[in-house]
Amino acid sequence: MKPAGTSFIGFGRGTAGGATFRAFDPAAVRELEPVFHSVSALECERAVQLAAGAAPAWAELSGAERNRFLRLIADKLDAKAAILAERAVQETGLPLARCTGEVARTSGQLRLCGETAGRGDWRDARIETALPDRKPLPKPDHRSMLRPLGPVVVFGSSNFPFAYSVAGGDTASAFAAGCPVIVKAHPAHPGTGELVGQLIVDAVKECGLPEGTFSLLFDAGFELGQALVKHPLVKAVGFTGSLKGGRALADLAAARPEPIPVYAEMGSINPLFILPGALAERSAAIVDGLHASSTVGVGQFCTNPGLIVLQRSAAAEQFGQALAAKLTATPESAMLTPGIRQNFATHTAARAKQAGVTVITEAKAEKPGGAAPVWFETEAATFLSNHRLSEEIFGPSSLVVWCRDEAEMHAVARHLEGSLTATLHAGAAEAAGQGALVALLAANAGRVILNS
Amino acid sequence: MKPAGTSFIGFGRGTAGGATFRAFDPAAVRELEPVFHSVSALECERAVQLAAGAAPAWAELSGAERNRFLRLIADKLDAKAAILAERAVQETGLPLARCTGEVARTSGQLRLCGETAGRGDWRDARIETALPDRKPLPKPDHRSMLRPLGPVVVFGSSNFPFAYSVAGGDTASAFAAGCPVIVKAHPAHPGTGELVGQLIVDAVKECGLPEGTFSLLFDAGFELGQALVKHPLVKAVGFTGSLKGGRALADLAAARPEPIPVYAEMGSINPLFILPGALAERSAAIVDGLHASSTVGVGQFCTNPGLIVLQRSAAAEQFGQALAAKLTATPESAMLTPGIRQNFATHTAARAKQAGVTVITEAKAEKPGGAAPVWFETEAATFLSNHRLSEEIFGPSSLVVWCRDEAEMHAVARHLEGSLTATLHAGAAEAAGQGALVALLAANAGRVILNS
Repeated sequence: MKPAGTSFIGFGRGTAGGATFRAFDPAAVRELEPVFHSVSALECERAVQLAAGAAPAWAELSGAERNRFLRLIADKLDAKAAILAERAVQETGLPLARCTGEVARTSGQLRLCGETAGRGDWRDARIETALPDRKPLPKPDHRSMLRPLGPVVVFGSSNFPFAYSVAGGDTASAFAAGCPVIVKAHPAHPGTGELVGQLIVDAVKECGLPEGTFSLLFDAGFELGQALVKHPLVKAVGFTGSLKGGRALADLAAARPEPIPVYAEMGSINPLFILPGALAERSAAIVDGLHASSTVGVGQFCTNPGLIVLQRSAAAEQFGQALAAKLTATPESAMLTPGIRQNFATHTAARAKQAGVTVITEAKAEKPGGAAPVWFETEAATFLSNHRLSEEIFGPSSLVVWCRDEAEMHAVARHLEGSLTATLHAGAAEAAGQGALVALLAANAGRVILNS
Repeated sequence: MKPAGTSFIGFGRGTAGGATFRAFDPAAVRELEPVFHSVSALECERAVQLAAGAAPAWAELSGAERNRFLRLIADKLDAKAAILAERAVQETGLPLARCTGEVARTSGQLRLCGETAGRGDWRDARIETALPDRKPLPKPDHRSMLRPLGPVVVFGSSNFPFAYSVAGGDTASAFAAGCPVIVKAHPAHPGTGELVGQLIVDAVKECGLPEGTFSLLFDAGFELGQALVKHPLVKAVGFTGSLKGGRALADLAAARPEPIPVYAEMGSINPLFILPGALAERSAAIVDGLHASSTVGVGQFCTNPGLIVLQRSAAAEQFGQALAAKLTATPESAMLTPGIRQNFATHTAARAKQAGVTVITEAKAEKPGGAAPVWFETEAATFLSNHRLSEEIFGPSSLVVWCRDEAEMHAVARHLEGSLTATLHAGAAEAAGQGALVALLAANAGRVILNS
């Protein structure tokens, strides 16, 4: 089971033409075999045509058949977990236990989506029989249910080589909903993607499903992805990645003659608000928790806290010093790709030059590919007046924002843009009175987390 | 209860500055009192600020309170139904019975939304308690529910002065969901809008709700609406109207730094496919039904069938002749506004000049403001090769598309863009075999209607 370096176009493989690229081992600082070949425009078109051809059959597939297919992929992932995780470790620098765990998470997601497809209640099927005697007008027999959209293009993420990649949540959801899938593999871990793709193609064949059920495309650049989003036969997009990348695709999708939905999970700053009572009760525990959640996966988790909002006080300053010391003592770790490492260096250097912003961690000698935490602090007034300070830096970097009082904390909360999460640490006595702050956070966060 | 001609900015009224316009009685062919004054940019900003200020309180309002408010508006509409319908008849040329019925429909919608708000199950509230022993990771306590978005801007329609206007379905849904509402009144029936707006303002006061709950803005042009959709404090848009107008607003909403949803019901061609068996069994009944549904409301219903797809045969040609004769015998009726009447004349004249398109109804001497049916026919090949023939003509005009065979009918179905409805007339023996055609229609229609 070794990657071959070409795309899957239905049951066929792409040719070895086109621009090439290789995966990179960020821990060993070396390129990996084999060479990967970017898909051609013709092959890409064939993948879309195959998917469009398979869409009617997929829409009619029973929930039980979808479930069987998704379970089979899950079983294949579990059976090859060791080989898959080994390749993912090489391509991402993530620890083996994390990669093995992520395979299990991914097969779990596939089974969950399969069960849901099998149950079928998500279709929201309704049968309202006729009421011929209704006044003022008779009511006809009326039946409704959710219907699959058609071919879905999925953009895998850099930071989750399994759970948000080739056989990840977007792919599993699309299949469960009855849609063929074309995955654009993330070039950070193409070998892992190819191994997973082969398992899906095997499952398609074993279940006797149409050839257009699944394709997996490799490409070193952005043009292929943009062309896919604009293709008239593509009906929806799943995306996990940066705000910039996701927004570019969403704009393309919205500008089509027939706009299509883009289900995007994009960069997130994940603000964390710490109230005085929380610091009084458990300052050390919050230091430990925050340090752990901001360094796990070298700060490359989508829930990495990028903004820490505090009120000035002696206790808060002690908290900040303890945190900075612990961050400074954190060893360097390899980031996912050389490009991501380079971006981290560029963006932290740019932030250090912003007026009113100070670095609170101590600089270290750099190892190639590795990154240590680089944290900043600023005053709330500075944060509110400089939009660049609201931008996410992907990796182990956060900004501590000092507020004079509660009103300024609310002003910061009101200023925030969309995030996956917003966290509030409050003391036992003060939690109940935070309705206004929670409402401000809930307005722009998918999830508000209270005291972890 | 006479209209005064100025906007409602919360509990206040707009000034009498700005560009003015009047409603027009299309049946009597005369302008109506009073003069209406376009809202100023400052008043518009104040309406948005009031709505944003009211949003937190609205989000916390209980379902029972929302229900009480919506029921009160409904009761007020019913109590004033005669006065409201009288003004609507003047402003639209629609029959009195239609306008009276539409008030009842609208109060029914308000009560339905109120009941739904009161029940609260639409919030999809979930409480998943913690599983501290779960492997591989403990599961925290997790609670979720749908939350209101914030201020909603509603664009009323020209053709439904009540059900899709100031107190229509979009407004009722937004209130039920917990959102303040700013309505941009349609300039075709501003007096009706103002009378309804006064009832809503009265209900806001009687229920002790915040001033920013509701504003109603008059404007003769398009700029106000565009500015509202781009305003950072506006969080969603409801729209009923043309494809062109709705798409322009959707594009603005998608291009915002923070994109917002546009819930738009836009122009719809509503294709109708008639199979040979249906003609053999009930040709005359289909002529009658089609004639009725294409002339009711002078073809200004959103479900007006704009495309009739048939296979050539002697029976089909007889059907076409009977239909054309019946349409030609239909008297003229007043359209909603002089502008709509003018557009109808322009677009039917343009269609008559398209290559391969023939008029099948006989021309009549024109009355001012009135319109009689103007129908066309063409071959499927011509239809498929000329995108302008897929455009809706608002009013009593449809295009008959002649197909050589079933395959060509499917090609036409595949070519269609989004519609509210698609209708299939099939004979008793042939209905069961139409799965492929139904799937093609379902791909682009909100509702597929089988044999009416």
